[in-house]
Amino acid sequence: MPRLGGIEAGGTKFVCAAGRGPEDAEFTEFPTGAPEETIAQAVEFFRGREPVEAVGIASFGPIDRRPESPTYGYITSTPKSRWRNTDLAGTVCRALGVRVAFDTDVNAAAVAEWRWGSARGLHSFVYVTIGTGIGGGAVIDGRLLHGRMHSEMGHIRIPRDRVRDPFPGNCPYHGDCLEGVASAPAIEARWGKPAHLIPDGHAAWALEADYLALGIVSWACTLSLERVVLGGGVMQRGELFPKIRERVAQLLNGYLEPPDIVAAELGRRAGVLGAIALAADRLRTFGLAPHGSELGQLGSDEPASAASPEFK
Amino acid sequence: MPRLGGIEAGGTKFVCAAGRGPEDAEFTEFPTGAPEETIAQAVEFFRGREPVEAVGIASFGPIDRRPESPTYGYITSTPKSRWRNTDLAGTVCRALGVRVAFDTDVNAAAVAEWRWGSARGLHSFVYVTIGTGIGGGAVIDGRLLHGRMHSEMGHIRIPRDRVRDPFPGNCPYHGDCLEGVASAPAIEARWGKPAHLIPDGHAAWALEADYLALGIVSWACTLSLERVVLGGGVMQRGELFPKIRERVAQLLNGYLEPPDIVAAELGRRAGVLGAIALAADRLRTFGLAPHGSELGQLGSDEPASAASPEFK
Repeated sequence: MPRLGGIEAGGTKFVCAAGRGPEDAEFTEFPTGAPEETIAQAVEFFRGREPVEAVGIASFGPIDRRPESPTYGYITSTPKSRWRNTDLAGTVCRALGVRVAFDTDVNAAAVAEWRWGSARGLHSFVYVTIGTGIGGGAVIDGRLLHGRMHSEMGHIRIPRDRVRDPFPGNCPYHGDCLEGVASAPAIEARWGKPAHLIPDGHAAWALEADYLALGIVSWACTLSLERVVLGGGVMQRGELFPKIRERVAQLLNGYLEPPDIVAAELGRRAGVLGAIALAADRLRTFGLAPHGSELGQLGSDEPASAASPEFK
Repeated sequence: MPRLGGIEAGGTKFVCAAGRGPEDAEFTEFPTGAPEETIAQAVEFFRGREPVEAVGIASFGPIDRRPESPTYGYITSTPKSRWRNTDLAGTVCRALGVRVAFDTDVNAAAVAEWRWGSARGLHSFVYVTIGTGIGGGAVIDGRLLHGRMHSEMGHIRIPRDRVRDPFPGNCPYHGDCLEGVASAPAIEARWGKPAHLIPDGHAAWALEADYLALGIVSWACTLSLERVVLGGGVMQRGELFPKIRERVAQLLNGYLEPPDIVAAELGRRAGVLGAIALAADRLRTFGLAPHGSELGQLGSDEPASAASPEFK
């Protein structure tokens, strides 16, 4: 496997990595400021080191990853106004002169868990992070799922009992979609304190498990999943896992075999490691990978004619 | 394109077709009786005609389509007890001595709409039928989605207002999953008369549109869809379409571009025509298709080593 670069572009911080995977990668991170300076800082990280053969970018979204689009490689309609319509992938590509892969942070994390973490060897699973938001990436039938744009799994609607939980939800677009009732900010807004200060055994965790179980049932019925890999800050609360498994089994009620429900293994490095895996796939697409290397089956949906976007 | 066969195995009737597509296919249909006699009747249809090069089967489910499984080609845990653990595909394969493709009725219908109907040229869409049940098939990134088994899209849970709709739902497994509140039997149970006898403008249709819109939002957020193709008896009610489109746009609220929402084109023939398309793909998988024929990109998820199940 060649030496590769990864950039996780997050709303609050950027993480950069250079290497071949979790064993040898060097990491750095810095706060997300204005686009020009922040991207320049990422570029400097790679310029100051042994060259990489390709760079993967795992970005907050929404992003444009349709190769035929004039804004391919851009962060598009994000609520973070400074970053709206930012040509992230193109800027990195031109500055470093290497191939660039571009996907969402959660798709990248799914790929990292697939390659090095809790989803090794699987054909059909989702990785879902529950933190400041709820987002998911799916690998189905051995390929990373994209569809028209990318999944927005956190924004599905779920049944709610307003007597048990009168909290109206805090998603600015949807109110009480899953993200609006079960993300870390929703937990804090409902209970008046941050999730990590809520004790074990509190009613918050039974409610959280019920909401996440309802989300898992929708994803499992739609995608037919072998496994659900759960990560993000909220899932540090270990008692959620048995509660979620029990509730998913109750909800499916024998109609479908419940998917395995497990913790993500790669933690905070999943996104940037996934970016490295995406970079590896980018090389594979062009046949530049060393013969015999096992670069994974990420499954590009890009048409062959657009396989070499120039970012110009 | 070679001459092909299709069998739609439904819970109440079987439909058989022989030909190359909607233009030239000959059809027959007969009630679903006991497995042995019913399958024999389908086999007779093909024996009495010019031979076909492969047969596709579009079956009610759940079915086993994992090529490595000892029950590959079987209808498995269906509530229709006579058909439980029936080797449908293997029996047809042995009787006719041709390659057999095997998938769900809704996956086959999705493929038919993709090839000849409302989803031509698309990369990512779902076909959903709303009738005696609710079921869907998805094509994502240009391939028919399977996952561990197959989608069961009708069994997602949706938010409900019990004041507006106290009906408890009639899904034997889940009560008020989407199928349990929005299928034709649910409409009949709630309003005390069959859907086709409920007049235009009745509150039933606003409620139905709201429920289907909630389902579409979950599928669109999970799969990232260009289009939703709606078929089945309930969707004969044309006023549902504008209501559903309006409600989906409200629910997504600008966060995602709503998918197109259109009527299926192939009607009651979608399943059996899809079976023919699956048969075409089966030949393509083996390189037996006539050179230059456009057999579509159905995207088999079957590993190469299992590409030739013997049904023995």
